[in-house]
Amino acid sequence: MKKFMDQDFLLSNPTAVKLFHMYAEYTPILDYHCHINPREIAEDRSFDNITQVWLGGDHYKWRFMRSCGVEEKYITGDASDYEKFKAWARVLGSAIGNPLYHWSHLELQRYFNYHGALNEKTADEVWNRCNEMLRKPEMSARNLILMSGVTLICTTDDPVDSLEYHKMIKDDPSFDVQVLPAWRPDRAMNINKPDFTDYIKKLSEVSGLEIKSFEDVLKALSIRLDFFQTMGCSVSDHGLDYAMYAPASMEEIEAIFNKRMAGQCVSALEEAQYKTAFMLAMGRECSKRNFVMQLHYGCKRDNNTAMYKKIGADTGFDAISNYTPSNELADFLNALAETDELPKTILYSLNPNDNQAIDTIMGCFQDSSAVGKIQHGSAWWFNDNKTGMIDQLTSLANLGNLAGFVGMLTDSRSFLSYTRHEYFRRILCNFIGTLVENGEFPEDYDILGKVVKDISYYNAVRYFGFDL
Amino acid sequence: MKKFMDQDFLLSNPTAVKLFHMYAEYTPILDYHCHINPREIAEDRSFDNITQVWLGGDHYKWRFMRSCGVEEKYITGDASDYEKFKAWARVLGSAIGNPLYHWSHLELQRYFNYHGALNEKTADEVWNRCNEMLRKPEMSARNLILMSGVTLICTTDDPVDSLEYHKMIKDDPSFDVQVLPAWRPDRAMNINKPDFTDYIKKLSEVSGLEIKSFEDVLKALSIRLDFFQTMGCSVSDHGLDYAMYAPASMEEIEAIFNKRMAGQCVSALEEAQYKTAFMLAMGRECSKRNFVMQLHYGCKRDNNTAMYKKIGADTGFDAISNYTPSNELADFLNALAETDELPKTILYSLNPNDNQAIDTIMGCFQDSSAVGKIQHGSAWWFNDNKTGMIDQLTSLANLGNLAGFVGMLTDSRSFLSYTRHEYFRRILCNFIGTLVENGEFPEDYDILGKVVKDISYYNAVRYFGFDL
Amino acid sequence: MKKFMDQDFLLSNPTAVKLFHMYAEYTPILDYHCHINPREIAEDRSFDNITQVWLGGDHYKWRFMRSCGVEEKYITGDASDYEKFKAWARVLGSAIGNPLYHWSHLELQRYFNYHGALNEKTADEVWNRCNEMLRKPEMSARNLILMSGVTLICTTDDPVDSLEYHKMIKDDPSFDVQVLPAWRPDRAMNINKPDFTDYIKKLSEVSGLEIKSFEDVLKALSIRLDFFQTMGCSVSDHGLDYAMYAPASMEEIEAIFNKRMAGQCVSALEEAQYKTAFMLAMGRECSKRNFVMQLHYGCKRDNNTAMYKKIGADTGFDAISNYTPSNELADFLNALAETDELPKTILYSLNPNDNQAIDTIMGCFQDSSAVGKIQHGSAWWFNDNKTGMIDQLTSLANLGNLAGFVGMLTDSRSFLSYTRHEYFRRILCNFIGTLVENGEFPEDYDILGKVVKDISYYNAVRYFGFDL
Repeated sequence: MKKFMDQDFLLSNPTAVKLFHMYAEYTPILDYHCHINPREIAEDRSFDNITQVWLGGDHYKWRFMRSCGVEEKYITGDASDYEKFKAWARVLGSAIGNPLYHWSHLELQRYFNYHGALNEKTADEVWNRCNEMLRKPEMSARNLILMSGVTLICTTDDPVDSLEYHKMIKDDPSFDVQVLPAWRPDRAMNINKPDFTDYIKKLSEVSGLEIKSFEDVLKALSIRLDFFQTMGCSVSDHGLDYAMYAPASMEEIEAIFNKRMAGQCVSALEEAQYKTAFMLAMGRECSKRNFVMQLHYGCKRDNNTAMYKKIGADTGFDAISNYTPSNELADFLNALAETDELPKTILYSLNPNDNQAIDTIMGCFQDSSAVGKIQHGSAWWFNDNKTGMIDQLTSLANLGNLAGFVGMLTDSRSFLSYTRHEYFRRILCNFIGTLVENGEFPEDYDILGKVVKDISYYNAVRYFGFDL
Repeated sequence: MKKFMDQDFLLSNPTAVKLFHMYAEYTPILDYHCHINPREIAEDRSFDNITQVWLGGDHYKWRFMRSCGVEEKYITGDASDYEKFKAWARVLGSAIGNPLYHWSHLELQRYFNYHGALNEKTADEVWNRCNEMLRKPEMSARNLILMSGVTLICTTDDPVDSLEYHKMIKDDPSFDVQVLPAWRPDRAMNINKPDFTDYIKKLSEVSGLEIKSFEDVLKALSIRLDFFQTMGCSVSDHGLDYAMYAPASMEEIEAIFNKRMAGQCVSALEEAQYKTAFMLAMGRECSKRNFVMQLHYGCKRDNNTAMYKKIGADTGFDAISNYTPSNELADFLNALAETDELPKTILYSLNPNDNQAIDTIMGCFQDSSAVGKIQHGSAWWFNDNKTGMIDQLTSLANLGNLAGFVGMLTDSRSFLSYTRHEYFRRILCNFIGTLVENGEFPEDYDILGKVVKDISYYNAVRYFGFDL
Repeated sequence: MKKFMDQDFLLSNPTAVKLFHMYAEYTPILDYHCHINPREIAEDRSFDNITQVWLGGDHYKWRFMRSCGVEEKYITGDASDYEKFKAWARVLGSAIGNPLYHWSHLELQRYFNYHGALNEKTADEVWNRCNEMLRKPEMSARNLILMSGVTLICTTDDPVDSLEYHKMIKDDPSFDVQVLPAWRPDRAMNINKPDFTDYIKKLSEVSGLEIKSFEDVLKALSIRLDFFQTMGCSVSDHGLDYAMYAPASMEEIEAIFNKRMAGQCVSALEEAQYKTAFMLAMGRECSKRNFVMQLHYGCKRDNNTAMYKKIGADTGFDAISNYTPSNELADFLNALAETDELPKTILYSLNPNDNQAIDTIMGCFQDSSAVGKIQHGSAWWFNDNKTGMIDQLTSLANLGNLAGFVGMLTDSRSFLSYTRHEYFRRILCNFIGTLVENGEFPEDYDILGKVVKDISYYNAVRYFGFDL
């Protein structure tokens, strides 16, 4: 029996062990997509207790607690931080097979040097140890980033954002990790959301351009893109229900936009047409600027209306959607490729059944402008676990160019979540090591070591073109 | 090489062996969903020969025989029981990788103490041994149930059923296994079926209520639900093409109902609207009565019209449907949750691609009213095999609370099928044991043993609230 | 660690080793579906260099090169054969986990006795060795076929084809491998393709029948089918976006046909109706003639319009489509079964999520006219890799009759691709061997050996009814 989560955790054979410890373990981290609040870095936030770090905004954990029948009071309610931690420790104790079990224990090991198992019995011991350590300055946001070997972070930012905290971080000579904005213009795309018209007004103000048409929306966004670019941005990100392709004429799009600005909601078809036009425009901007465009889709959000009314969005009520028509994705990419305006693109579907379709669609749009110009993003959100990662790696290896993969990202709000890169690298090294052990690939460490280091870090550096 | 189906069948490591033999093997069985005929229990049916037990109504076996080119005469035709058994033994002999191979041999081992392999050569030996044993009173329906360690059985019953056999069993002090009805009102939902109007008349008679509207249908069903509840029923079950959500006003539903009662068929949309309204009403009834609602969906039935005309329904001509829109499932559950009328619910899709969508949708509707209030049902029907079970367990563990799972059911018409609980438990113990062996969960038998026993039996006792 | 691709490649246990080497390895090959050009056999083509053999028309390799950022010049452009080979060797060197790695090295081992690893460093060595060998007469097309142990090949042929090369091969007493045509009437089905009306004219000429209606199309095809049948054809093949069922009256179909022949395009619904009528007619022809009908579906082709315009079809720009409605497939098969006109049928979906739906739909249409009358075709195209094959075998074993499976085909244009039969057989033997090693099936070599040999070769001989 392997020991519980020891140094060879998830490494099932000697080649995997060698690949991880020799090539992956100490390679730096480039976190090209996360939801960290740049203010917390700018102000070098510190934490009072482990509940703040772990349970403050982590809807993965909240969902799990609800699945265990924990009262909402101990999740997002007014119970004390200690009570919340105890409730969490109790249910985590029997979370067999859940990635939260591994994520949490990796964090306890790497940041708090705790190698036991957290459960009801050990809860107080862990609570005391973590809180004591968190009060030390070594455990501030910046120090956690440095300790984790991170060289660059891309946050996720709205076009109307001032990026003031990015500027503060950039201007601060005492912290040399790059913290760059990423362009996330979803609010300008989500035409049927209640706040759409208000958002357009805000965009108008911030860009200094009076917005009277969809064309003006694009102009205003272009102005903001110029600003983002001066701040080091080279990545966009888009959250879509599904990757759609419903082409329409510019006149039709303007009519849809006008209808919505007049206060009406638009039809489902009109919404798809507007979003298609919007995304095509964003693709062209990314292409022109040599940005990487990220498409996140296959999610149905805010499914529990009653809870949404009580505690809002991003609180653990989202789900995988199996409406992810691959044909529209292919047609969307083709529409950009036809005019040679398809940017480097990373595709992430929340629907795990999409792996093979994505990998074959990707293969239709590769060219010599980049290695793996179109990428299949690392197993996302609900798929960000051992089986999800293995499935993504297997499909990508079967149907695409694994060696050119840009690898892992945290997609997280937490400063402890860099261990997910370690989690990914262990799984990657085990995946490759197992192929070698089975005689399916030669034991040639020149090639193997390079591939592991590239996927861990160097592919991303080259692909995004960061200055590192 | 492991021996063929010995005591450690499906247990690939010492932890799995220990978990099964120490915690799972002798834990009782609660069979909360099956299709056993209660009359056979009431009358304590005995069997003349193994063909009656095995091939009398088992469309899994019939399908397999047809796939092997066996003539229908030897399947559902007029060949003798001996000839049918021989035909079955011949094809089973090379059924490599098919769950029927394991199910059949587990039954031969546990009920007939036969540990060889059934095939053409051994057919006569098995035929003689089984028939000899079946003629003994120890092998009557009731004794098979007792021998299997079953404490409670839920059958599947139509609202118009008199439940006379349930009453007989309940009133018989010589048999203390609880045999409870489950509410399956599909015939009142399937508005476009040829017998719908006749069924409504029958429902009217049995409930003593003149039915002139959809509202009356619901009233009549409520009367019958009261009766079922007095008979110990606390579970409903619904067979749906897919989990749909097509909301309509009560006026629209009444118009659809009237159209159908006047002899017309209704459109596909109207059918979906009627069924949505029906299922919402059933959900509310379940919530009010604290019943568990089971949704079985993703099946396209009676696909071979020629054979349907010859030998009717449930004869082996059903298939998985991949039309299972997850968004409608989420919206349906939300519609009930919005008014705080979502009952405890178990979701079963026949489409194995739905595992992850189900597990994430579930996560949106959990609350503290029960541990695992919304459950992902055990791998169903065509998925009820080793890989199907592992996939369901993996997805549930990754995305939900495995430790709170209510576990296995037989879904069977046969008194020998309780070994499927053993099959499930072996796979479960191997799943958990392997995680421990790999260092992915601590070797803490306080936790592991409890989880195994809970999933095997005790979670179901608590979840359904049975008096055991 | 197992040695890199040695004699026990992909065989992970002693039973698998025994099954492969004793039963599978030297069993002949029946390649019932491929895209080999019969002219190359008739003329016994020889090859100047390995680039011609490997990279001349292999869009699998082209896609992979594009994914690695190789310039199109070195793929389909005007670089020299040597340069193209070097570019290929470089990227293959790190193609970890890609089936091209295994296919290529199996070909190097079996045809060129090269057991090293091809990469940038070894490229020249391999280039020289292969080219030297290719220049010998032993490496002509016919000799490659003979060396591979092939007894029969079905090519893929258009109804208007003269089959002159098939005739030449048949009439040549010096080559006794059967090379038979297969019926692929897609151009008569693809009503909206630009060349449809021209094709109908061609069909008219070749069949000697003036075509004025859809009925005439069917008559003309029937004339051609008679001819194909005299040439030994007993297999049809159909490439569909998805397996559709949109029934319409003969009048409607004739109107659709007339509309198209008048130069108009038809609507999406009309296209589905026309194709449904066409496929039903083809099914009836196959049934009448005791042909095997093959349905290949789930593919979206020519996704990159810009590249299509440059280099045409079948150049590596196709993808998996996830629009594969299982309900229509079931209804299509049922429509033929209802009138007892359902032929032996092999189903291949490019969407790997369809495995279980296919296997359960199949089960609804089996009868005693053949063992495994409806077959689930071997993992196709993008799924033709280790994981894809295991998934297909697992699903088929779980839900159907694995022992009756007709097994592998190359689906290839290359005379070196017979090693894919070896690849398949290794995976098959490992699949079955592992079940035996795990105690899930008895170690009975009478049964196991027969099953392995049957799936490797003899099932196909019997199923297609070839004279071998």
